[in-house]
Amino acid sequence: MLSILTDQIRSKQSFLCVGLDPVVEKLPVSLLSAADPMFEFCKRIIDATLPYAVAYKPNLAFFEANGSAGLASLERVIEYIPRECFAIADAKRGDIGNTAEAYARAFFERMQFNAVTLSPYMGADSIAPFLTRKGKMAIILAKTSNAGSNDFQMLELSTGRPLYLEVVAQCVSKWSPEQIMFVVGAQNAEELTQIRAIAPGYFFLIPGFGAQGGKLSDVSHILVPGEAGILANYSRQIIYASSGDDFDLKAGEKACEIAKEMAQLLADQI
Amino acid sequence: MLSILTDQIRSKQSFLCVGLDPVVEKLPVSLLSAADPMFEFCKRIIDATLPYAVAYKPNLAFFEANGSAGLASLERVIEYIPRECFAIADAKRGDIGNTAEAYARAFFERMQFNAVTLSPYMGADSIAPFLTRKGKMAIILAKTSNAGSNDFQMLELSTGRPLYLEVVAQCVSKWSPEQIMFVVGAQNAEELTQIRAIAPGYFFLIPGFGAQGGKLSDVSHILVPGEAGILANYSRQIIYASSGDDFDLKAGEKACEIAKEMAQLLADQI
Repeated sequence: MLSILTDQIRSKQSFLCVGLDPVVEKLPVSLLSAADPMFEFCKRIIDATLPYAVAYKPNLAFFEANGSAGLASLERVIEYIPRECFAIADAKRGDIGNTAEAYARAFFERMQFNAVTLSPYMGADSIAPFLTRKGKMAIILAKTSNAGSNDFQMLELSTGRPLYLEVVAQCVSKWSPEQIMFVVGAQNAEELTQIRAIAPGYFFLIPGFGAQGGKLSDVSHILVPGEAGILANYSRQIIYASSGDDFDLKAGEKACEIAKEMAQLLADQI
Repeated sequence: MLSILTDQIRSKQSFLCVGLDPVVEKLPVSLLSAADPMFEFCKRIIDATLPYAVAYKPNLAFFEANGSAGLASLERVIEYIPRECFAIADAKRGDIGNTAEAYARAFFERMQFNAVTLSPYMGADSIAPFLTRKGKMAIILAKTSNAGSNDFQMLELSTGRPLYLEVVAQCVSKWSPEQIMFVVGAQNAEELTQIRAIAPGYFFLIPGFGAQGGKLSDVSHILVPGEAGILANYSRQIIYASSGDDFDLKAGEKACEIAKEMAQLLADQI
């Protein structure tokens, strides 16, 4: 698997990914006078959670909602994330070749992300352009954490296989664990098992903890001994642990608490 | 159908959508000294094609590839597109509810787009947040124009229906022609027929003409008399008709030529 990730996971005994979803209306009043409140918020969250987080995942939507100024904030955030951490652009893009290449330039050249989340609907040639740069990865939606994930991802194909599993199977047949990961929601215990069975060496990015109801104990059965093989994402539960000026302190405390549970789960694997 | 579109289609006798995909390296040298070359390029393309185009479709990737400065260019472009034209954010987003809402704010409030393209993979609750603002639409990927569209969109479900058609059927059961359109590639004559059969009153946004090989005569069988029911998108063939300083003149000539063919097809319908 990926040394940048496994190094962090081993040294921090954590597989925590902190989702950075800053919403201007939710920021503490004291930050609003800063030159760039969204950046300032993310910076203080990163400082407070760095001992516990192995990855950070800014969600593009929350920056784009603030227009070009929001994207400028994101550029500062990605600059600020320490290089030893894994940085994920949660963008869920997916488009034809020349457009995919333009997005790859945005996330991997203009900004220094390690990986970007992608929707598989448009097929392999919409994913391949993200895999031409050494060390850069695509994280492909398989079975997501929302209720609507049942609308299409769970449809049974004529082969008897559900769509989400066919997506994983096709991707595994084309790309290595150094190139791709999969997004699988925490609440999908059965689907996590099915996907792990056909993608044993791959990392999963798992959303759906905390505000969305998933628990770490729901995913411990698919941990890979020694390497985790999981990034568990927490966003709101950490970054909005407090709405006051102690938001960073409370975020750090929450991240610490989650990382302790992770360390125990990792210890149980050995 | 949509009066903003049908008014333009009737007055211009055209169903041309011009795709704005500016790539800095492809811009005429004379533009590079402008304060904002990407905006200047798009502005001159819009000026030259306005008599023939009923819609404009900036592709987010090509602006984001230029970072926050690129998004600032896009903000100027959307300001400049005349309000009587239909403005499409070609973004192919698709995410959980609160994230989808943030994108909707980006495209419909921060910028004044009429519609945004979306991937259906995450299901109905990833599309619904885009439909809460009066007159704002979602354009949902059905069968796209790239080779990879066969990887998943064409998979046969256990019901015998291909995935792309199930996507259309579920969307049609939930939303009206005033709320959604579908993306269908020009080369897919059979799929266009299948989709038109279950979505008779809906607009289709059709890419894949020109550089991608599709011809207008391939789609004339699904035109809706009087209203077209189609937006045919041309990007590279128009905006890069010339690499010299006469790029806008040549873009206008190409758009005029395409619109003439469209007028003939519309006349043949009556």
